[in-house]
Amino acid sequence: MYTYDYLLDFTKSIFIKMGCSKEHALMASKVFLAAELRGLPSHGMIRIKDYFQLWEADRINTRPDIKIVHQTSSTAVVDGDRAIGMVAATRSMEIAIEKAEKAGTGWVSTRNSNHFGIAGYYAMMALEHDMIGLTMTNANPLVAPTFSVSRLLGTNPVAVAVPAKTQPPFVADFSTTPIARGKLAVAEKKGEKTLPGYVQDSKGDSSVDPSILKRGGSMLTLGGDYEHGSHKGYCMSAIVDIFSAVLSNANFGPFVPPSVAYLPVLEEKTGEGTGHFFGAMRIDAFQEASEFKIKMDKWIETFRNAKSAPGKPAVMIPGDPERKCEERIIKEGINVLPAIAKELKKISDQLGVDFEVN
Amino acid sequence: MYTYDYLLDFTKSIFIKMGCSKEHALMASKVFLAAELRGLPSHGMIRIKDYFQLWEADRINTRPDIKIVHQTSSTAVVDGDRAIGMVAATRSMEIAIEKAEKAGTGWVSTRNSNHFGIAGYYAMMALEHDMIGLTMTNANPLVAPTFSVSRLLGTNPVAVAVPAKTQPPFVADFSTTPIARGKLAVAEKKGEKTLPGYVQDSKGDSSVDPSILKRGGSMLTLGGDYEHGSHKGYCMSAIVDIFSAVLSNANFGPFVPPSVAYLPVLEEKTGEGTGHFFGAMRIDAFQEASEFKIKMDKWIETFRNAKSAPGKPAVMIPGDPERKCEERIIKEGINVLPAIAKELKKISDQLGVDFEVN
Repeated sequence: MYTYDYLLDFTKSIFIKMGCSKEHALMASKVFLAAELRGLPSHGMIRIKDYFQLWEADRINTRPDIKIVHQTSSTAVVDGDRAIGMVAATRSMEIAIEKAEKAGTGWVSTRNSNHFGIAGYYAMMALEHDMIGLTMTNANPLVAPTFSVSRLLGTNPVAVAVPAKTQPPFVADFSTTPIARGKLAVAEKKGEKTLPGYVQDSKGDSSVDPSILKRGGSMLTLGGDYEHGSHKGYCMSAIVDIFSAVLSNANFGPFVPPSVAYLPVLEEKTGEGTGHFFGAMRIDAFQEASEFKIKMDKWIETFRNAKSAPGKPAVMIPGDPERKCEERIIKEGINVLPAIAKELKKISDQLGVDFEVN
Repeated sequence: MYTYDYLLDFTKSIFIKMGCSKEHALMASKVFLAAELRGLPSHGMIRIKDYFQLWEADRINTRPDIKIVHQTSSTAVVDGDRAIGMVAATRSMEIAIEKAEKAGTGWVSTRNSNHFGIAGYYAMMALEHDMIGLTMTNANPLVAPTFSVSRLLGTNPVAVAVPAKTQPPFVADFSTTPIARGKLAVAEKKGEKTLPGYVQDSKGDSSVDPSILKRGGSMLTLGGDYEHGSHKGYCMSAIVDIFSAVLSNANFGPFVPPSVAYLPVLEEKTGEGTGHFFGAMRIDAFQEASEFKIKMDKWIETFRNAKSAPGKPAVMIPGDPERKCEERIIKEGINVLPAIAKELKKISDQLGVDFEVN
């Protein structure tokens, strides 16, 4: 078990050794640690190796000049200059918030970025400003549109954070596929089959083999099959891709660059790097913020008090499970699996940073 | 079969007789007819009776004073003054577009409105302005959040329209449930069972009975069950509800007023009427519009050229099916089912409007 502070400091040191400024190293580290706290370790410490290897391969820029390349009072296109995704994304969301302060809302489409970790982190940045936050990103193509066997889309998540008064905020953060990619990896490692409805084989037949992606299979969009609305999941994923990449001139769909160094750079590009989309809406651009937050409390209480089906858990508000995780992990400490701690130790030795395997 | 012009004129006359201005009557009629053309008759001529009966019951206002009650350069809250939903929605989307012309984007949350027909119509209004359009609305509570048996959400649709250059526009228009409510009604009329994954009974057990909503059942969110991501459909539906109703002070979730006069007005209110949300983003607030549209062509072509699974149709671009319908129906004419034509005849006799049952 590690404390939050220990791992934050460690991660910061790693990124500083990779050439990041202290400010950028902290920015990135906070997102990695937020993933650990919120119970999404697939986007936490395990990913430091990916970034280290991308840096070794000179596929990221740890001294980026992140800048606005086009703007209006409520919009901007940001060029991330091949930054660590968490750095480009944090800066982009800051710009969305700055825009919203003046124009009521701010909308930023970002290109030339990389994998940015958990989408919810950036959406939640809006909360302390009494704003609604929205984040989307495209991602490595693993998902086939309805009727297809071609992997054209990522798991393309959407996150929306809405402040309340006495209730904790509403924080939805979800991929546009039935399950996240990480859950397939876990099933594969355990040698387990998956439920039907998550993946298909290279011919488009339903599969329960979590390793099928290695043999031409693909993930399905939310809904699973056409009869159950997979075309709606496809629509959502497509919207995320267009807002993140076509608006910003990043690579869209099948052209999104790999977020790991062991996969080669793609031959064809349709833009620069990975794309994200950020939104911030000032609550008081619509109504008095304090009144809105009272209404949001009532919304949350209405849903929290919904009747559960017999034998089912209580109805949850988006953000509840992650917040409960965070409360527990802050108390108990962060568990880094031995295999991951070993990898981190190796990286820390190479970079000359202290790391204690416990 | 009827021509578009005949039914547009007829519908206009009906609304004028109900007290609408010529301008508002045309606004509303265009949306009813767009639903017929786009192959969504469940939101077309069949709904005129609902509006007629709401008018008889004095539950809509055909002479509304639709106004902005709060605004910034990129936002507005619109009070629909109990207008026909199509009128409040068209005016709200116009305001979003006007805002976007100046601020880059425009975002309007509308209260005190009614059922507005097909969401895609308003999103598509943005296209001729070289803007991306977005529409959401809450709706009568028929849908239970994950784990629950309480009907707290509507089928809460989302529509997004994006212009292209030589390709037809991308127009996604989808409910946040596996199927639309209308498909249950059709199955019920035909005496057919539904597939599993659409509805549950009053205890939360899976059901294939399309009439189960009459006996305490509920619709499921997109994803169907928790294992297949129904909580993600719940998140989307919740976001639609919050943006449409909490931001505008309309009724949220279970408090959305019935869109038919045979259901009583609810006792408890949390705001005014039904709520919608509209967005318009000027393409050139992000990049040169002509370049964007070339890139959108490439996006569309990439997806259109995806490999289909054996035996499956070609991959579709959101908006393809509705556009094909429209092309066919413009040529062949609009088919109004005899039972509906009979209802329309009765209404037209009451109001003193000519209507030919053919």
